[in-house]
Amino acid sequence: MSTVEQQLDELEATITDELPAGVSVTSVAYEGPELVVYTRDPKRFAQEDDLVRGLASRLRKRITVRPDPSVLSQPERAREEIMDVVPEEAGVTDLDFHADTGEVVIEAQKPGMVIGRGGATLREITKTVGWTPEVVRTPPIESSTVTNVRNFLKQEREERREILERVGRQIHREEMSDDEYVRITTLGCCREVGRASFILSTPETRVLVDCGDKPGAEGEVPYLQAPEALGAGPQNIDAVVLTHAHLDHSALIPLLFKYGYDGPIYTTEPTRDLMGLLTLDYLDVAAKEGRTPPYESAMVREAIKHTIPLEYGDVTDIAPDVKLTLHNAGHILGSSVAHFHVGDGLYNVAFTGDIHYGDTRLFDGAVNDFPRVETLVMESTYGGRNDYQTDQDDSERKLKRLIREAHEKGGKVLIPAFAVGRSQEIMLVIEEAMREGEIPSMPVHLDGMIWEATAIHTTYPEYLRDDLRSRIFHGEDNPFLADEFNHIESGEERQEVADGDPAIVLSTSGMMTGGPVMSWLELLGPDSDSTLLFVGYQAQGTLGRRIQNGRRDVAVGDGRDTVSVNMDVETVDGFSGHADRAGLENYVKTMSPRPEKVLCVHGDERSVQDLSSGLYHDHNVRTFAPKNLETFRFL
Amino acid sequence: MSTVEQQLDELEATITDELPAGVSVTSVAYEGPELVVYTRDPKRFAQEDDLVRGLASRLRKRITVRPDPSVLSQPERAREEIMDVVPEEAGVTDLDFHADTGEVVIEAQKPGMVIGRGGATLREITKTVGWTPEVVRTPPIESSTVTNVRNFLKQEREERREILERVGRQIHREEMSDDEYVRITTLGCCREVGRASFILSTPETRVLVDCGDKPGAEGEVPYLQAPEALGAGPQNIDAVVLTHAHLDHSALIPLLFKYGYDGPIYTTEPTRDLMGLLTLDYLDVAAKEGRTPPYESAMVREAIKHTIPLEYGDVTDIAPDVKLTLHNAGHILGSSVAHFHVGDGLYNVAFTGDIHYGDTRLFDGAVNDFPRVETLVMESTYGGRNDYQTDQDDSERKLKRLIREAHEKGGKVLIPAFAVGRSQEIMLVIEEAMREGEIPSMPVHLDGMIWEATAIHTTYPEYLRDDLRSRIFHGEDNPFLADEFNHIESGEERQEVADGDPAIVLSTSGMMTGGPVMSWLELLGPDSDSTLLFVGYQAQGTLGRRIQNGRRDVAVGDGRDTVSVNMDVETVDGFSGHADRAGLENYVKTMSPRPEKVLCVHGDERSVQDLSSGLYHDHNVRTFAPKNLETFRFL
Repeated sequence: MSTVEQQLDELEATITDELPAGVSVTSVAYEGPELVVYTRDPKRFAQEDDLVRGLASRLRKRITVRPDPSVLSQPERAREEIMDVVPEEAGVTDLDFHADTGEVVIEAQKPGMVIGRGGATLREITKTVGWTPEVVRTPPIESSTVTNVRNFLKQEREERREILERVGRQIHREEMSDDEYVRITTLGCCREVGRASFILSTPETRVLVDCGDKPGAEGEVPYLQAPEALGAGPQNIDAVVLTHAHLDHSALIPLLFKYGYDGPIYTTEPTRDLMGLLTLDYLDVAAKEGRTPPYESAMVREAIKHTIPLEYGDVTDIAPDVKLTLHNAGHILGSSVAHFHVGDGLYNVAFTGDIHYGDTRLFDGAVNDFPRVETLVMESTYGGRNDYQTDQDDSERKLKRLIREAHEKGGKVLIPAFAVGRSQEIMLVIEEAMREGEIPSMPVHLDGMIWEATAIHTTYPEYLRDDLRSRIFHGEDNPFLADEFNHIESGEERQEVADGDPAIVLSTSGMMTGGPVMSWLELLGPDSDSTLLFVGYQAQGTLGRRIQNGRRDVAVGDGRDTVSVNMDVETVDGFSGHADRAGLENYVKTMSPRPEKVLCVHGDERSVQDLSSGLYHDHNVRTFAPKNLETFRFL
Repeated sequence: MSTVEQQLDELEATITDELPAGVSVTSVAYEGPELVVYTRDPKRFAQEDDLVRGLASRLRKRITVRPDPSVLSQPERAREEIMDVVPEEAGVTDLDFHADTGEVVIEAQKPGMVIGRGGATLREITKTVGWTPEVVRTPPIESSTVTNVRNFLKQEREERREILERVGRQIHREEMSDDEYVRITTLGCCREVGRASFILSTPETRVLVDCGDKPGAEGEVPYLQAPEALGAGPQNIDAVVLTHAHLDHSALIPLLFKYGYDGPIYTTEPTRDLMGLLTLDYLDVAAKEGRTPPYESAMVREAIKHTIPLEYGDVTDIAPDVKLTLHNAGHILGSSVAHFHVGDGLYNVAFTGDIHYGDTRLFDGAVNDFPRVETLVMESTYGGRNDYQTDQDDSERKLKRLIREAHEKGGKVLIPAFAVGRSQEIMLVIEEAMREGEIPSMPVHLDGMIWEATAIHTTYPEYLRDDLRSRIFHGEDNPFLADEFNHIESGEERQEVADGDPAIVLSTSGMMTGGPVMSWLELLGPDSDSTLLFVGYQAQGTLGRRIQNGRRDVAVGDGRDTVSVNMDVETVDGFSGHADRAGLENYVKTMSPRPEKVLCVHGDERSVQDLSSGLYHDHNVRTFAPKNLETFRFL
């Protein structure tokens, strides 16, 4: 008998002892980080909610109770009873019964009303039908990504359960080593922006944090072939943690599965969906540009299948000696700071991923409040000595003025924007300005993946800033559903817009390196009444940067045609998803306790050196500016 | 056709072109780092020694010429002809013909006379018989180690050739990566003494430098299971380099073969033989102490079979992008500083192994004169602020006085000593003192492995200091053959010595942790006229240290008997094989150019920190005191 089986037998005995007489336990199993308890008395658990709470605190594990299949009521009947219990205003759109686990997934427009105050309605459901309810939100804007992911996971439910059981056994294995250390190996994004990737290792465990590409430097991928990474075999990695869905952190996550990895990916639910959206697009773009994509779309599905979603603040065992907690990073939807607690009080490491320190319209500022962090691995994108951003209020004023001016001339405003993050921030500014009459009301056309990314945002309002969240919760006030917003679906539609009245167009790609923004440039470029408005960083070598620098004759199509850009070209800074230099310093300065060591990564050479030296001198922490492929040992 | 085969075909064509008409090339092959050229005209090569020199400089390779088997004269006849060519005073003791490679191994008491001035006699042999001669020294003192190693290699000749060919193809493979970096990973001996082990890695190549145990801390072995080491598979390591034979550098080299490594070990010839002696003894000791030895003696033979011996100063290709040169380290017989030249002028790293900076009786001081060294990995055993050693002259005076005093009392002097290094140094002091009448002549009994280790020293006089070397070359003046030295071969002989006249006994182990010195302690301990004389460092936890600290009742046998130590107990410092703090500083200070970075390793926490800080402040180099399991990247 393996030690895990023995452990489960002992747990079953303990649980049986702990529970009141007459509450049965038919079996216990690990599923990922959770301990699942099967019972013939699910209603008793629902009635006395102290039972689960008592077990969880006694066993120090996350516990899920499921009904033994023998006590389940018929789905047809259960469906009716559930609809009786749940208030009609909840807007239930789907009920999906899974007899193997006794779970019923309830999709509803207002999940809160299915849950009830303190979970009262959920308990009522179990008391009535025995099934364990799980609630998901019906996307307020239809999202093919969310629908596809949910359908796919439903279809792969059986294999997914096998994966979770395997991962569960892995997490709860016995520790093998008496040694104690924590190491970080840098596989990318050191003294450069892009290809974020790290290994966090202990004598027991090896965790890969992020696995991205490098924009503008195709082929410069993380050093996965190093023996510290997958070179020692994919089974050598226990877990993958993804901080957020941007491609410079996520693009090569599916590649891990092509290389034989079949362990878990821990990330937030919106990051999982956005990763699906962005990596599939990444493959499309590669194919369109005639490059061989590094993996097939099947690998994206593998990644989704192996994802174990975590909520902010959940402390989760991901290995015998490692607990992971994700915290809001304020950067994009679902973005996280990943905090690792190693051993029993031994050591703590946090990886910031990308952070925005202050609040934005979309998100609260990044969390930096941890019980302990000895070592912080910190992004440094704007870590340079002079990397101070314009105040967002000033930026918004300028944005509104430029829109007003274009409208007065009867022109259009074309805003190239990244689908995830910046687009939604700009949408909120525009929606408010129109609602409050600061700019005239006019159509705002969304082209490329912006619409879909926005739909994903509205599916997970829990991840948005509280005032925005509550507007989405009360569906009638969802700013993303404002009448002005229109999803462009065809080339003809673009032509109509171009020929029509004043309007705003937000279109990908954000640096004009391809995507529908190229068609918009062909249509609107010659119009001297219109404005081309940059709201994000334009990297060296991109068309966006060239136009910013004064280039006005631009090759379009397959490079055979040229368009003259007669539009006004304007730039509004200050909508970055990254903390500026002050924000990065404040993030560290306001931590309590202060970390002992900070590794400055994810910035160009100058930025990491400046930030490293600044934090050292002004805030008295030991700082490092690592190179790729170095290993630091703590303890 | 593989790229290596293509390369060899091209080389064969080039060589045929370069050689004068009528000098044939029948084939070319790589054997380890050498390019072997087979010819039907070996005599032409012997006549015109410019031919080989020209090819070597044209091709930038080490070239060995061998006769095509078709042109070899009969061994019986060749034997007579060789004996005619070689002067009788050379003392040829064996001739061994290998028809497969056309080589004849000539074992002689005076190899120099077989070689002749500038190799004239060797060339004469080839001109006469066609065979390629190789000369080895007949051990002046019979050495079972040397005999066993030579017989074993003779017997395994065919497999060894296969190994060399495989290694040759590996070394001369095409480079695969465009990346450029040099990394050092620490697997042991950081902030501690013992378990020396490092990985030097480039995008192409991974070299393991040393693989030792940790004295007094059985089980604390190098981190071989780390993915940076063998964890990524033994084939991941291209080469092993051994700086010297002491067990804290060599003990686990044979273990690599148990773990599946089957690549080359680069080291000096005497280190190969001493490694054989010491690791076999290491297995014996483990067995005697009832521990399971970490590997079988067959693995020691594998290690010997895979050793490619290098001479000091030979620049050798060990990988497509790495050249290795070993230099005298002055520490023990065959000990080396390992210098790596990476890429074509890209980067240089030297590992000191253990060094003695000043000259000793046995060895010249460690070499620190390299064309370039950007990073130096440096031992720090005596790197502490106050680790200054007594002058050797003072130490010798004290040693001689104590011997004289014991002799006057009619007692014996018992000196526990390490078999390799310190024993021979003390033997030289005693031999000279007796020869010059500074101490009375009396028998000097050598017990344990000392005799055998001394025999190995006399087999390789090229590795000894020049005056000592020339005394051994002229056999009649070999100090190790002085009449006073006697090899103890039995327990009865020990009893006779104990019952007899004044004498000196040198016996292992050096820290009285076992070995024949324990019997000597039983025999001589109660005799208050005798002296127990420590000449080396006694580690914490050893019996030697306890007696130094005043303990006088000592358990012997299986711990059932007790002996009272009534002997005078004395300590003479200053015979260390390690540089002291001043020596270590001088080693760095006198380097030209000075290294940019120094990694201080192989010393306890205090010693590495002191040395690291001292070198930084006084000599303006960037210094580091690494921990085990860190990786540093250069470039």
